[in-house]
Amino acid sequence: MENKRLENLFQKMRHGADYNYEQWLDSPEILADDFRLMKQSHSNVMSIGIFSWAMLEPEDGHYDFSWLDRLMDELAANDIGAILATPSAAPPAWLSQKYPETRRMNVLGHREPHKGRQNFCFTSPVYREKVNQINRQLAERYQNHPALLLWHVSNEYGGVQCHCELCYEAFRTWLKNRYGDLNTLNHAWWTTFWSHRYTAWDQIEPVDVSTHGLMLDWQRFTSDQALDFYKAEIVPLRQITPAIPITTNFMRPDVALDYWRFAEHVDVISWDSYPRWHQTDDVVTGMETAFYHDLHRSYKQGLPFLLMESTPSVTNWQGISRVKKPGAHKLTSLQAIAHGSNSVQYFQWRQSRGAWEKFHGAVVSHLNSSDTRVFRDVTQIGESLEKLSAILPSTNKASVAVIYDYENEWALNNAQIPRTLGKKYQITCQHHYAPFWQQGITVDVINARTDLSKYKIVIAPMLYLMGKGLPERIEAFVQAGGVFVTTYVSGMVDDSDLAFLNGYPPALRRTLGLYSEEIDALTDEQQGVLELCEGNDLNLAGSYSFHEYAELIHPETATMIAAYGSEFYAGYPAITVNNYGNGKAYYIAARTDDELLADFYKSLARAENINGALSVDLPKGVTAQVRETENQRFVFLMNFTDQLQMVDLGEAHFTDQLTGSPAADEVTLYPYDIRILSAPIP
Amino acid sequence: MENKRLENLFQKMRHGADYNYEQWLDSPEILADDFRLMKQSHSNVMSIGIFSWAMLEPEDGHYDFSWLDRLMDELAANDIGAILATPSAAPPAWLSQKYPETRRMNVLGHREPHKGRQNFCFTSPVYREKVNQINRQLAERYQNHPALLLWHVSNEYGGVQCHCELCYEAFRTWLKNRYGDLNTLNHAWWTTFWSHRYTAWDQIEPVDVSTHGLMLDWQRFTSDQALDFYKAEIVPLRQITPAIPITTNFMRPDVALDYWRFAEHVDVISWDSYPRWHQTDDVVTGMETAFYHDLHRSYKQGLPFLLMESTPSVTNWQGISRVKKPGAHKLTSLQAIAHGSNSVQYFQWRQSRGAWEKFHGAVVSHLNSSDTRVFRDVTQIGESLEKLSAILPSTNKASVAVIYDYENEWALNNAQIPRTLGKKYQITCQHHYAPFWQQGITVDVINARTDLSKYKIVIAPMLYLMGKGLPERIEAFVQAGGVFVTTYVSGMVDDSDLAFLNGYPPALRRTLGLYSEEIDALTDEQQGVLELCEGNDLNLAGSYSFHEYAELIHPETATMIAAYGSEFYAGYPAITVNNYGNGKAYYIAARTDDELLADFYKSLARAENINGALSVDLPKGVTAQVRETENQRFVFLMNFTDQLQMVDLGEAHFTDQLTGSPAADEVTLYPYDIRILSAPIP
Amino acid sequence: MENKRLENLFQKMRHGADYNYEQWLDSPEILADDFRLMKQSHSNVMSIGIFSWAMLEPEDGHYDFSWLDRLMDELAANDIGAILATPSAAPPAWLSQKYPETRRMNVLGHREPHKGRQNFCFTSPVYREKVNQINRQLAERYQNHPALLLWHVSNEYGGVQCHCELCYEAFRTWLKNRYGDLNTLNHAWWTTFWSHRYTAWDQIEPVDVSTHGLMLDWQRFTSDQALDFYKAEIVPLRQITPAIPITTNFMRPDVALDYWRFAEHVDVISWDSYPRWHQTDDVVTGMETAFYHDLHRSYKQGLPFLLMESTPSVTNWQGISRVKKPGAHKLTSLQAIAHGSNSVQYFQWRQSRGAWEKFHGAVVSHLNSSDTRVFRDVTQIGESLEKLSAILPSTNKASVAVIYDYENEWALNNAQIPRTLGKKYQITCQHHYAPFWQQGITVDVINARTDLSKYKIVIAPMLYLMGKGLPERIEAFVQAGGVFVTTYVSGMVDDSDLAFLNGYPPALRRTLGLYSEEIDALTDEQQGVLELCEGNDLNLAGSYSFHEYAELIHPETATMIAAYGSEFYAGYPAITVNNYGNGKAYYIAARTDDELLADFYKSLARAENINGALSVDLPKGVTAQVRETENQRFVFLMNFTDQLQMVDLGEAHFTDQLTGSPAADEVTLYPYDIRILSAPIP
Repeated sequence: MENKRLENLFQKMRHGADYNYEQWLDSPEILADDFRLMKQSHSNVMSIGIFSWAMLEPEDGHYDFSWLDRLMDELAANDIGAILATPSAAPPAWLSQKYPETRRMNVLGHREPHKGRQNFCFTSPVYREKVNQINRQLAERYQNHPALLLWHVSNEYGGVQCHCELCYEAFRTWLKNRYGDLNTLNHAWWTTFWSHRYTAWDQIEPVDVSTHGLMLDWQRFTSDQALDFYKAEIVPLRQITPAIPITTNFMRPDVALDYWRFAEHVDVISWDSYPRWHQTDDVVTGMETAFYHDLHRSYKQGLPFLLMESTPSVTNWQGISRVKKPGAHKLTSLQAIAHGSNSVQYFQWRQSRGAWEKFHGAVVSHLNSSDTRVFRDVTQIGESLEKLSAILPSTNKASVAVIYDYENEWALNNAQIPRTLGKKYQITCQHHYAPFWQQGITVDVINARTDLSKYKIVIAPMLYLMGKGLPERIEAFVQAGGVFVTTYVSGMVDDSDLAFLNGYPPALRRTLGLYSEEIDALTDEQQGVLELCEGNDLNLAGSYSFHEYAELIHPETATMIAAYGSEFYAGYPAITVNNYGNGKAYYIAARTDDELLADFYKSLARAENINGALSVDLPKGVTAQVRETENQRFVFLMNFTDQLQMVDLGEAHFTDQLTGSPAADEVTLYPYDIRILSAPIP
Repeated sequence: MENKRLENLFQKMRHGADYNYEQWLDSPEILADDFRLMKQSHSNVMSIGIFSWAMLEPEDGHYDFSWLDRLMDELAANDIGAILATPSAAPPAWLSQKYPETRRMNVLGHREPHKGRQNFCFTSPVYREKVNQINRQLAERYQNHPALLLWHVSNEYGGVQCHCELCYEAFRTWLKNRYGDLNTLNHAWWTTFWSHRYTAWDQIEPVDVSTHGLMLDWQRFTSDQALDFYKAEIVPLRQITPAIPITTNFMRPDVALDYWRFAEHVDVISWDSYPRWHQTDDVVTGMETAFYHDLHRSYKQGLPFLLMESTPSVTNWQGISRVKKPGAHKLTSLQAIAHGSNSVQYFQWRQSRGAWEKFHGAVVSHLNSSDTRVFRDVTQIGESLEKLSAILPSTNKASVAVIYDYENEWALNNAQIPRTLGKKYQITCQHHYAPFWQQGITVDVINARTDLSKYKIVIAPMLYLMGKGLPERIEAFVQAGGVFVTTYVSGMVDDSDLAFLNGYPPALRRTLGLYSEEIDALTDEQQGVLELCEGNDLNLAGSYSFHEYAELIHPETATMIAAYGSEFYAGYPAITVNNYGNGKAYYIAARTDDELLADFYKSLARAENINGALSVDLPKGVTAQVRETENQRFVFLMNFTDQLQMVDLGEAHFTDQLTGSPAADEVTLYPYDIRILSAPIP
Repeated sequence: MENKRLENLFQKMRHGADYNYEQWLDSPEILADDFRLMKQSHSNVMSIGIFSWAMLEPEDGHYDFSWLDRLMDELAANDIGAILATPSAAPPAWLSQKYPETRRMNVLGHREPHKGRQNFCFTSPVYREKVNQINRQLAERYQNHPALLLWHVSNEYGGVQCHCELCYEAFRTWLKNRYGDLNTLNHAWWTTFWSHRYTAWDQIEPVDVSTHGLMLDWQRFTSDQALDFYKAEIVPLRQITPAIPITTNFMRPDVALDYWRFAEHVDVISWDSYPRWHQTDDVVTGMETAFYHDLHRSYKQGLPFLLMESTPSVTNWQGISRVKKPGAHKLTSLQAIAHGSNSVQYFQWRQSRGAWEKFHGAVVSHLNSSDTRVFRDVTQIGESLEKLSAILPSTNKASVAVIYDYENEWALNNAQIPRTLGKKYQITCQHHYAPFWQQGITVDVINARTDLSKYKIVIAPMLYLMGKGLPERIEAFVQAGGVFVTTYVSGMVDDSDLAFLNGYPPALRRTLGLYSEEIDALTDEQQGVLELCEGNDLNLAGSYSFHEYAELIHPETATMIAAYGSEFYAGYPAITVNNYGNGKAYYIAARTDDELLADFYKSLARAENINGALSVDLPKGVTAQVRETENQRFVFLMNFTDQLQMVDLGEAHFTDQLTGSPAADEVTLYPYDIRILSAPIP
């Protein structure tokens, strides 16, 4: 059914932007320019109505859709699809004033004033009712409008916490559903510690960071409550416009939402991507951005997604934001396509005249001109996308997965392990992802609940929390021939953040063939040496460095690949492998340098016969990503360095998808260059 | 009329300090020492009663002036003028307790407890009434007292914000006066953004940093409300003592007050100067201090001002505060005179025994002795000032002005431009001021409302906000032959912080002969190269560096003086000049190193025939400042380095004003030395 | 009487841990393991019931001691003493909910929610009553239980501030007792400053950091109020179990309690020591830890104390915490014995499964195994302690004392002196202590109220506050032949934080033979040179460096030992000595490098015939500490370096107390090695 709903949306590569038409109603000449420039830039989609509540319902129960009618008609007339937003992200001032209970309450019990946006309580029945009313109005009015392409529900939900009594009551109900009775809860949270046992539900307040189970559940609840709000939002949309797909724009993690749960309730994933180009090392930034694209593609098991927002130029909120160098806009926009997006969209179409985001980059700046570097860059993307329709049905296929798990991250954030400074969980996942990206090997970024059986290699860095059944699933994966890699600070607690007793959970201990005794924590100034053992499983040699974390482990059935070469534990195992069933389980006990990871995973991929997009070694900073249909492969060759790079395509015979010409055997990539090559699959 | 009021005050160079007589009423021997030591130190003025409310009105409506009577009489008997304060800066505890509404309310709606000082609400009618009562009492009682020289209204007003309902109501009234109706306000603040449209005045709360227009107006209002309070304070003073001048002591900027508006309502400017000598580079500290002196002189168009506070030794609040090196007290005290002060005054006369400021430097320390380095230094100033009476009527005359504008600073502080980190507006103004200071050229530091026509060169660094009429005034200034210099991040918004459309305001665009397309923001680690063009207007050559901000501009009628030499915009214009009417307009598109500014302004001054105080090049760190009457010039030659410096006076024949002897042709300046030279104007 | 109470406790060296039996009631197999492992580890004492209130009184007035009965019986059966806690440190949730007035109020007037621990108001009558009830129940129930060895009252009291009206009223009563009337208080706090005079007691709120006297008294009050709470806690214990000794576990300073006042009301000192081993320089960490041990020994004039808590491994709260290197556990545990402890105890016996401290190091980790490095290390300590019974009655005898004073620290923390950044009072005391530690000379760490007459040398670094009588006591000490050393930032204020007038208090000025005129404050980047004078009193020579503070002093009868060698005060005195009566008083005017202090105190000790534990120079990082009875000396030779060290014992003939064998003349110390040597006293 989902695919059916997406047919219209995915009939072309989408190109467009957030468009705040209603800010310019008194400037018809500006509005006329807009539609002219949209055509000029090859735009075919606009996100509208995102912050329009005050203009749509200027008074409680009094709606004014006249301007939106005109906008929808203009879009239709120009053959531009409307991604129509529900306006819940920003209530009007009159609503916050008339219904104070809709405003968030902070942890001190202070009702927040009306300000900014995303400032409301997810639980408030009044707020939900007001949102339901306006969403119903929108759906009823535009259900048959030819411009209506996709619902954009609210904007950038986040798990910001509200401490009002309604939220507390909802939390307690959530807990009753989870635990049934207080004894079970007291055990799960280990409340006998520090005399924290609860004897009545209403004693529970989510303010005690010392009770890790409580804080983890509160985090889960706030995510679930945001999702519950979303699910309430879409009721009238589903009812009135069953054929129109629905999305809500995600962001990078760190917004306290478990997007995996949201993903089940959207038709298509969309997200807002704002990397910090040209600020540090663009190769690292390119790799990180790839990681996030792959994560968003993985949320719905590889279904193409939308790049809902990106800046065509600078942001206004990064502290420092550089303009894009020549080529960089094309590279970074089409990078999204390479990783599975079927759109390139911007925030924003036109710069506002006033307020917070007025200097955020836009397709049309305050100059109101098409004669700008940015407008020309954008137009080039529009033209390119029109040449990439063949890619629309293709997908990215991965045999490697990195587990990056939200519940694990939340639990780990609270964890009082020997080194709490600089845990770097998300970054560590990226460090384990980077070697594959550099080799042009497709990687899915999954969570701990994802089915592992479709992968050859699964990597789980710092998987501190291993929920019910996960150790057994890992064991089954390895027994069936899978390769599992995990690291220090893994397998420590269960779903309630209770430590496992007697070492790892039994299935994990069997699979890894070892147990861990202690975690040493090095200071920022300290580092150690790690020595590869002769004749090891992966043919690695030489010495590397480690820092920050070093676990002291005891192999039982595992064998040693590398040993510590410094500290009192010199000679102790640092990397091990356990042959188990038909598979293998690797353990990396210390936080190593990136060189170790690069060599380790290169060797591992070779051992498992996993090849990159091209059969050649890529220069550092150049990657190749593949999308494929049953008959055709599309290789996106991307240079994230500011140097000219040469790539020998070897014997493959590719066509340049943008020019239609055959590609040379040796491709010359200019700084920040991208080349899209296609070849039939034999 | 003002000058008449100041006759008595300015009949001699003033020397004195803040004096807290009332702290020592039980130690008559200390009080006797005080008057003896005042005479010994050649003091002729004392600031009194600043924090005396609790001693003057120990109970609501019950006044006790007995001790103040004695103090005033003692001062008169010793021929020491009284700068009598109104005590509003620190209400007694009983007042805060009895009238809670006089205490400030913070942004969380919490009424602040009584503590510290400057802790009251500027709007509270009760507070205003209590202040009116005691000010009236003071004015009536001392109106004819021979010691009364000047009113010192309150102390160091600041724009600290109060969020009580009274202030909010006053703010809304202020807004009604400014905008008339909500539609106008909604447009000015661009509230359609993020659904922020107001439908009733009482929805407006100044807590939303995302609405720049709101926050800018709140800033204006808090400044205006402080001024309104001041104006209410002085009603009884003006009424009862019309001949006594009034001041209130200003501080360095950053206290959220627009002192230019205050300046219109004081008779004489006074300010409290606390540079951090000997902590970093004293040459830079000397330049900055000069900038602030010039700013204070400019507030009232060159009228001599008072150095109301300075420390004779260390402060107690700087974290680190060094004692002054030999010579430094004389140099830094007389520097104020050089820039237009007619006084050197200290905080404080005598160190308190207890509480916060007990270790702040003072003329008389806890040793209670005149046999101290500090007391000798102070006495030397007293003696010197007595020899400088001829300077009293002289003024500083500038043909160069730097615009440093408060409203611009407030708007810029909020501005979300591509680089929000380290905007450094005030410091940038100083960097553009420094080359003139080093050349001994007098500079006025003005605001954007100041009449420009009296200057030859006007420099407006980072003039982000250009209010109504300003572009036209700049255009007229240049057309009439003026030289205007501006930089990156200028001309971006109007009075409401709304971005200008289609590039700069038309008058500015015509004047500069260019428009700006993008602002690149470099990180702290990045910098670029800037190359001077051959045969440029200013005969500059070679290459310099730039950092942090680089604008990409398009000359229309302007010509290029320098080009970028690095980044993808190498070859693009970086500095331009536009010949317009009878004048010129320069544009510096990037934040350059100081060397560029030094060479640029040196060349510009030469081109415009603007000469320094002396006709010779001064060694780095040595400056010369000029005060002049119709017949006489006084050149203050100051060495801010810790090295011996030689200055060849050339053919000028000067008299040393302190010794009365002819000055040598070549002056030897010891470390931290100052020489005051006079010469008749032919 | 005290010694009688301690007989049972001190009949053996104590070894044990905090034990949370009640967390495992549903795991009898775990509990059985516990008692087996306790025996295996040679444990003979367990601290129990510390956080058990919710388990002991699950409902208001309904007690359940069944599990504690079983625990006490098990301990007795295993010949393990019970250190039984009163549970007041962590009230149950029902109590905080039912009696809101027991929860702390923060400075904003917000009643804190129930969370964490140590979260209650020390003043609340309700809380005191509930504590009294449960303490009475415990005392009555276990008064005759054979396991009961010692009361552990509450846990880690701290002077956390509560701003409720009950506390404010108690504070005002405390003030009335101290000052009698408001005039006296107003003078003591110098409230005429900033118009702060109080006219009614209820105007006083401890929120004004500008009134130093107020804040100092509030600090004293909060410490006194915690003590008052403690004294109320022990009433039922003293009444019902008069023969059972009482302790409460102290911590390092910085918890806002004056432990000297607590010490008068406990039978034995105990403390929780958590140094950061292996993070920076272990020699410095070893010295600091020694300082704190000596402080705790000094609280009760040398009576042996208990090391109530230490980690056998890592902590969970240090940000970074390293596992202990081989040898380090033995060294650092027995270091406590060396400095006067009669126990080595751990937090914690067994790691919790959940919540905040679950990864804090423990004797038994989540592995639940005795086959761990940590368990073996712990067992080794248990075995060693059994061989050290002869040491039990011995004590440490000091002829040198360093004054480290709490009231001085509190006053100094608030003091607005010329350099407020990095005052480093506590660290400075350690820098003056370190030279003795390195020489193996025993030092007492005393407060300013301690009797000085028993010492030969008393060192008072930065003794800013000199309370009533102290200058006279110092004078008497020196006149009687004592050697007194003090430094910059000393003798500045009296008990009310009022500055002394006319220089130091007269007795101090006479004793030092000088007065101070100014304090120069250097920035972090600046430092100066200090030159020793020829032929000085201590035979020191050469030059050293100074930084941060440099006082400019005027010797009256003192003579110069060192002079400044840089800054404008080159040549001014920097170190002086005054021969006074039969003694000497030294003044160190600047903050010098450690080398100066090392050489100065080595020379001083030699001059005063004070010898270290061994008659030889110890290698850097090796120290020797002595405990002695009438007949026997025990020398603890400790190597805090990671290098092998040789120490020549010279002609002394020692026995190795742990092996019973004669010690070699030259002892080889491995990295982190400790050797306990004994010899009869002839």
